[in-house]
Amino acid sequence: MNYKFYISYKGTAYSGFQVQPNRDTIQGRLAKALSAVTRAAVNPHGVIGCGRTDAGVHARKYCFNFHTDARIPTDAFARALNGALPRDIAVLSCETADNDFHARFSANSKTYAYYFDTNAVRSPFTADTCMHYPYKLDAGRLHNAARRFVGEHDFTAFCTAEAKHRLGTDTVRKVYEISVREEQGGGSPAGSTVCMKISGNGFLHNMVRIICGTLVYVNEGKLAEEDITRLLENGRREGAGVTLPPHGLFLEDVKYN
Amino acid sequence: MNYKFYISYKGTAYSGFQVQPNRDTIQGRLAKALSAVTRAAVNPHGVIGCGRTDAGVHARKYCFNFHTDARIPTDAFARALNGALPRDIAVLSCETADNDFHARFSANSKTYAYYFDTNAVRSPFTADTCMHYPYKLDAGRLHNAARRFVGEHDFTAFCTAEAKHRLGTDTVRKVYEISVREEQGGGSPAGSTVCMKISGNGFLHNMVRIICGTLVYVNEGKLAEEDITRLLENGRREGAGVTLPPHGLFLEDVKYN
Repeated sequence: MNYKFYISYKGTAYSGFQVQPNRDTIQGRLAKALSAVTRAAVNPHGVIGCGRTDAGVHARKYCFNFHTDARIPTDAFARALNGALPRDIAVLSCETADNDFHARFSANSKTYAYYFDTNAVRSPFTADTCMHYPYKLDAGRLHNAARRFVGEHDFTAFCTAEAKHRLGTDTVRKVYEISVREEQGGGSPAGSTVCMKISGNGFLHNMVRIICGTLVYVNEGKLAEEDITRLLENGRREGAGVTLPPHGLFLEDVKYN
Repeated sequence: MNYKFYISYKGTAYSGFQVQPNRDTIQGRLAKALSAVTRAAVNPHGVIGCGRTDAGVHARKYCFNFHTDARIPTDAFARALNGALPRDIAVLSCETADNDFHARFSANSKTYAYYFDTNAVRSPFTADTCMHYPYKLDAGRLHNAARRFVGEHDFTAFCTAEAKHRLGTDTVRKVYEISVREEQGGGSPAGSTVCMKISGNGFLHNMVRIICGTLVYVNEGKLAEEDITRLLENGRREGAGVTLPPHGLFLEDVKYN
């Protein structure tokens, strides 16, 4: 049976999703918990995630699938897995899926969010989940500037050199939506004051963190709005903004047909 | 000079406010940071807090004062102290105070809040700041029931046996206000879904956690509303609800004349 799970995790304590030797990873923890629940050895690579998240990056809704001979009612499976996981990883749901469902290859769209705490004094309660940026972020202006990312573009200027090297010319992605919003009255799930949110058919390594870093440069006048269009055309990574730190980034959702 | 500071801290990593041998405490950390900033040895007992908070309890706005011969402009003092503190303790403000200002004895009122996450699945993001209570909490009904705590009462039934033993008959406190509210759309600063908030002229050890635990018992039908009045009269601790865990509790504010 192919089981499809949605989970949520706080990435602070982990070296990212992907299993690595001698590192504590989400994939490694899931394999260990699945072993305990199914009473069978589970290879971490059999835990098929919807994508890699870097060390310190969080997920509000992350999907993975897992093939097993075990027959476990989905509700009981979700509950049992929750009981076997540490409290910074939570199972939101479990369902059965077609045999060819693949959490990564079957995904149609993903949404990421980057959270900022713009208060003058850093908050002890958002230190793990927001970037502390004690300056004004002009959400209205950046929201307009960000429209330039929408559509199909070559995002070479907005990914790591390693990703570019590995992917060659396969660096075209489609951004469906992007928004920059002030969060009213502490209403943000991450406790932030400004949130940048972006949906697309796929994302290159560090793409969201560089796009958001570029918008921060626009905020600070280090780049003009028109530079975004220019960078999408010329692919010069060194012309874009910095890669923002991982702890403000959340995978918000992943959608399938 | 007598300096008055407001700070905020996440209590998860600490053994409470009060300094203890071989334990990591807020008071100990403040003394260490004040030593670094004033370049003089600071005895932790010279860091005068507005009250003790137990291990795991948080503070959104906590006041302490500190006498020193050092003359430091208040804004610079706040900034320097922030730089010398770990990121789960933040200085909100610094001002100079009258020489006889005492963070504990001068306090007129304190406000505490207890936060619940009533979602079916625990959230990895509120594990340190909310009690996970995956059931319905009837905020309207509990809000009405909680009115019975308002006013001057002997809170013997709502404190630890140790506190009762130590204080004797000095267990009368005045509750100014108490509320039980649902938090709309994740709008809670702690990420909770229900918040119980209580203000008073002072609180006995564990008083807020036992009052909130008693309201949970009312929610579950283990106690009737009238039992609250009865417990305030008969002082029988064993008749009240359980002491809720520390991690849902926040000192929200402390006020002075």
